[in-house]
Order: sequence, then structure tokens, then C-alpha cells
Amino acid sequence: MTDQMKAIVAKEGEALKLADVDRPEIGAHDVLVKVAAAGLNRADLVQRAGKYPPPPGASQIMGLECAGTIVAVGEKVTRWKEGDRACALLAGGGYAEFCAVDEGSLLPVPENLSLTEAAALPEAMMTVYANVFMRSAFKEGESVLVHGGTSGIGSMAIQMLKEAGAAKIWTTAGSDEKCAAAKALGATHTINYKTEDFETVVKEGGGADVILDMVGGEYVQKNISAARVNGRICNIAYLNGSKVELDLIYLMVKRLILTGTTLRARSAEEKAEIRAAIEERFWPKVASGEIKPVIEKVYPIAEAEAAQAAMEKGGHIGKLLLEVG
Amino acid sequence: MTDQMKAIVAKEGEALKLADVDRPEIGAHDVLVKVAAAGLNRADLVQRAGKYPPPPGASQIMGLECAGTIVAVGEKVTRWKEGDRACALLAGGGYAEFCAVDEGSLLPVPENLSLTEAAALPEAMMTVYANVFMRSAFKEGESVLVHGGTSGIGSMAIQMLKEAGAAKIWTTAGSDEKCAAAKALGATHTINYKTEDFETVVKEGGGADVILDMVGGEYVQKNISAARVNGRICNIAYLNGSKVELDLIYLMVKRLILTGTTLRARSAEEKAEIRAAIEERFWPKVASGEIKPVIEKVYPIAEAEAAQAAMEKGGHIGKLLLEVG
Repeated sequence: MTDQMKAIVAKEGEALKLADVDRPEIGAHDVLVKVAAAGLNRADLVQRAGKYPPPPGASQIMGLECAGTIVAVGEKVTRWKEGDRACALLAGGGYAEFCAVDEGSLLPVPENLSLTEAAALPEAMMTVYANVFMRSAFKEGESVLVHGGTSGIGSMAIQMLKEAGAAKIWTTAGSDEKCAAAKALGATHTINYKTEDFETVVKEGGGADVILDMVGGEYVQKNISAARVNGRICNIAYLNGSKVELDLIYLMVKRLILTGTTLRARSAEEKAEIRAAIEERFWPKVASGEIKPVIEKVYPIAEAEAAQAAMEKGGHIGKLLLEVG
Repeated sequence: MTDQMKAIVAKEGEALKLADVDRPEIGAHDVLVKVAAAGLNRADLVQRAGKYPPPPGASQIMGLECAGTIVAVGEKVTRWKEGDRACALLAGGGYAEFCAVDEGSLLPVPENLSLTEAAALPEAMMTVYANVFMRSAFKEGESVLVHGGTSGIGSMAIQMLKEAGAAKIWTTAGSDEKCAAAKALGATHTINYKTEDFETVVKEGGGADVILDMVGGEYVQKNISAARVNGRICNIAYLNGSKVELDLIYLMVKRLILTGTTLRARSAEEKAEIRAAIEERFWPKVASGEIKPVIEKVYPIAEAEAAQAAMEKGGHIGKLLLEVG
């Protein structure tokens, strides 16, 4: 192997393009993955805009998830060997021919899925698990409002909540077509936010115990209003802005929790804990096909610019992926 | 017994005064307490102003805690009998000669305390336990910022956190005298908010894992700033207002929890759970004198107007109480 590889490089003011860069080196607990496909995430756009720098030690290349074949393992890696098919959450580096990742962030690719399909899973499933199941402590029988129900995260949240026994799953989406797609995934109630007010719909339906939100802005106060007593509102992004005017009185009176998390800055140990929980609780449902990756379109990696433009524009249902080689 | 009693009655635009009212009736799970003393709380002022109405079924009389002697028990009461000394959290009705209370909200008065002293404990201890230990899940070795360190709540929070093994206990207070009092109770760092900026002090000290706040307003953003990764910020009131302008980005980036609770609206079962936890974990420390009620002044019940004026004015250290009869 040479020590070079192709990867997507972002230069300010220029379109994304493939370039030759150094292959990543692996540490004792890492594996080297020959990337078959990488998932796009909105955070990639934020990183490209200079507002979400990689954590110390992480790759400067974009890409928070990938799937591929393991081609090298660090000396302390215990579970994985060369030739294994795996998908992984990454702190960066997915838009490339090879990436290095801590073995704790890897999941085996079930036989029913292609590597490309598997690349759609890690970021969405780990984000949903960390925020809905861990931080917001969703319990069977509770009702949930999932914003952005046809986003990569939203489409996975709906499927996981259906499997986990949510009583009601409300979801918001921006067209009747998206609402129909969300319903097909398991949403019990869909809200076209262009024609309906989610706050009214959810309140009249009894309120939500858990709200998963990536919108922020004016949604924050409406989430507080739509939550039931002891409800948890969890933000994984603030696409409409994080600066908000709030009246917090009902946060206290209804004993709500307003919280939010990101995955990337967490320690390898925390990521391994989330991954292990998913592997135990939800991976059998992935292997059986009950939980499926929802994929809008697969782009060749050389067309990363077009793929990011599609994400920026919106309108997709499910994940956008880059296929490598 | 006649079926009348003296109680403090609030009429709009008039000073508080004692009047003859009906004695409360007790339900099957209630006891009737002959009140020896009742604690004042800021919520009493809010209730008097018409902004904190009693929950359905609760007494219209002010007073969220009392201590006294049990004079009657409902048919399903198992633990208590006439003559027992007890203190209690109330949903209302403390400013009176008699009050009715669910047996789950009662604690026995230890021998080392007078009934008047015991009246200073229930609301403060249950509020601190419900918010710091339950909702905010304080763990031994964590660091805590307690706002209002010489308030009834603050003075109890400091003592309970000291007993529970907090690493650092920062507290804010409005004078050097109050800071000294908070230090004597166990605060490790005191901040005179008139001359120092708590946000700076706490951040430079490594940040707080838990923040107990009753101030709100501009403190909310500063609390977010002063919190450590995975920190919990819990409001039990918003004395400076609940309408705030916030940037929530660090709520997400630091994976914080912003929450708040009140006690009064909770079910009898929840109150009994909080009471039982305090009785097991902290009541032995009350009986041994390691945790003490902090009392500023005891007023005869006929002087309730003066007592509330003193609370409104501030400047007190610890609780204000009304003695009955």
C-alpha cells in the first residue's frame, strides 16, 4: 500500500474535489477501514462553513460515518480482523478512501445489507439512541414528537420508536409527500408544518413526553408548550438558530427538561457505550430488516459537491450517501 | 372542639389579619395537625398576589409547611396517632390553628428540635432533595453552585450538600455578612453578587455540575456558561423573571440539562416518595444536629403582615416563621 489516498478536500470559495492526501495512521485501539460509502450529515455543511471544527486529534476531512472493509487493526484491537465488514461513527474523515476509527465505534454489517446501505446507519442510530433513549430516557408507552421526520435522523427515530413501543409518534415534515413517507415508516401522526401548527396538534393530542428537535429557533417555545408534565425536549441542532426568546415559567411548572447533546465531542468510551447499547437493543432489528436505512440518493464521491448541495437544498427523504471507488 | 379556628386571611388591598374560618376536614389518609408554627415561603407572596393559585382541593389559606401536634387521624392513616409531634409539607393552609395533611407528607419531629424549629424544615429540605438530589441527580464528589445561599432553601442546600460530599459548594449572596453565614453553613466558596460576577468565579474554578437557582432572568445564560459538561441547571423560581433571551448553543455543546420543578402541584404519592427519601438519608443528620434549621426570626401569627413584609424586603438569613397560639 502506498501511504497516499484520495479524499474530498474543501477549500474556501471552491467546489469540493478529490485530492491526494496522506492515509490516516491508526492507533493501538483503532482499525483502518477501506471505505465503501460514507453518509452525509448536516454537520458536514456546518464544518465546511468553519463553524464546527473537528475535535482535537480528529481528521480534518469531512464525514461522520462510513461503512467498508477492515484492512488493518491496531495492536490492542480485540474484536475486529482484516476483511470484516463494518460500519462506524467517525469524528471525521469519512469522505475518503480510508479512515481510522476506534474499535468501540464499529458495528458489524449484517448480511442483509450492502456496505453502502450500512453507511446510512451509524450517525442516525447513535444520535437517536443517545438523545431519545439515553438522555431523554424514553420509556415504552410514552408519546414522542420527532421533528424533521424524513431527515436521516427523523426517519431512523420513527423506526426505532415504533420498535420500542411508543404510544404516539407525531412527526413534522414540509410536504404531504414527506408526511406520507414518515407515516410509512411508523409515525402515527404526521404534521405538514407548512399548513398545520404542530404545537396545537400535539397539545390537543395530549402532549409529548419526549421531543427530538433539530430546528430550534421559534420551535423551542412551542416545544415547551407541546410537552407533557415531566417531558424532555432534546435538541441535536438549531437549524433555525440557537438564539431564542423564551418564557421558562412552564419549564418549571410542568417540570420539563430542556437539553441537547452532540456525539462528536464525546470520549471513545462514551461512544462505545452507545454503540454497545444499539448493538444489543436494535441491531437484531436491523439484521431482520424491521429497521431499514432510508436512502434518498447515492452519489459517487467525486460528486460530493452536488451531494452537499442537495442536502443544503433539502427536499430529500432519508440519507444522502457518497460511494467510494 | 368547635368547628371554627383562627387563620390568616388575605383580602386584596388589606393587611393580613387573623379571622375565624372553618376548620379543615380530614380525608381518610389525612391527619389534622394543631399547628405550633408555620414557615414562610416566597411562594406565599406570589400566591397572595394572585399568581400562584392553590391546586384543586388545597386550602385557600397561605402556608406551605408547618409543625405541630396531631389531634385527629383519618380512618386509613397507619403511621400516626394523636399526640405525635410532626412537621409537614403542605399544599396550603399553614397560616392557621389547624391544618389537614396527607400522612405521606409528614415527618416526625426529632427530640432535639422544638416544634417551631421543625417548622423551618419541610419545604426547604423537600425542595432541595427533589431538585438537587432527584431531578439533578447530584452525586458525591460533584461541585455545585447554590444561588441565594442564605435563603431558607439555600441555607439548607448548603448543609445537605456538605453532608452528601460535594467537592465544591459555591454560593451567591448579597452581602459580606450573608457570605460569612453561608460559609459557616458549609459553603466552600462564597460570592457577593454585588461586587463579584459569579459566572467568572465559577468558570475559573472549573465549573459547576449542578446549579440550583431561584433568580432566573439574566442568571439563566450565566448559569449555562458556569456549568460543566453534562451539568444540570435547576430553577425553583424566577425572582428576576422567567422571560429570557438565551443562546442555547452551549446547552447542546456542553450537553447540559436546563430544568425546573415545583413541589406543590405534585401528587401525594410523589410527595411521599420525596419525604421517605429525606427521612432515610438526611433525617438522622437532623436528629444529630449536623443539619440545623436556620431561622432569622419568629413572629406571632397575628403579625403575619410584618413577617411577609420582612420576606419581601429581604436581608434575612434563613427562615421566617409564624408561631401560633
